[in-house]
Amino acid sequence: MSALETVNTFMRCIESKDIDAAVALLADDVSYENMPIDPIVGREAVRQVLDGFLQPAQEVDWRVDREWQIGGAVINERVDRFKIGDGWLELPVAGFFEVADGQITLWRDYFDMGSYMSQLSSLTS
Amino acid sequence: MSALETVNTFMRCIESKDIDAAVALLADDVSYENMPIDPIVGREAVRQVLDGFLQPAQEVDWRVDREWQIGGAVINERVDRFKIGDGWLELPVAGFFEVADGQITLWRDYFDMGSYMSQLSSLTS
Repeated sequence: MSALETVNTFMRCIESKDIDAAVALLADDVSYENMPIDPIVGREAVRQVLDGFLQPAQEVDWRVDREWQIGGAVINERVDRFKIGDGWLELPVAGFFEVADGQITLWRDYFDMGSYMSQLSSLTS
Repeated sequence: MSALETVNTFMRCIESKDIDAAVALLADDVSYENMPIDPIVGREAVRQVLDGFLQPAQEVDWRVDREWQIGGAVINERVDRFKIGDGWLELPVAGFFEVADGQITLWRDYFDMGSYMSQLSSLTS
């Protein structure tokens, strides 16, 4: 798989909430960075975070609007959508990935945390 | 100038707080998008926003950590730094630009607004 295919396969695994298959595409020492929060380092730590934020969603749809591959780097602009209760939480995200030997070594997302939290709060209240 | 040079020149103008020179690099109908807020459209509207957020800063330093040019698209990961009072506000940003005929037609930034607001609040209190 190309770096782009690896990243897109990873996102399809997340959409199907298949966390085992998703984390199998991560390097042992992957760094998962939700800016500006401290990095989450290591496949098992990322698994726990994914469990936590996928758990409340009945459906997950990460819509990629634009994507680029430059060498082992992949960049995408996407809208991460989570069906929670009767509505959809929709979060615009800029994602930066690095892929080596078929595994994701860096996953860095930029987004507005307040937008995520306020939607989560209204959908779960 | 290449698309990358245009974007970097734009950012150097912002760092020197030369808003006239900065907006001269924007297309008349530029779209400036701070995700997920509604787009600010048009050079004069962007000028007012730049005035507002550069005004409180004694110094402006937008540090580009990584940048890519793909055709007329430019992407950068940067830390936008503003010296306010005795401290620096530091905001990680992912920027997506489109450049045509030497002018920036799209400027879209992804960042955590809460991080900006809480730092601004503590530096100005």
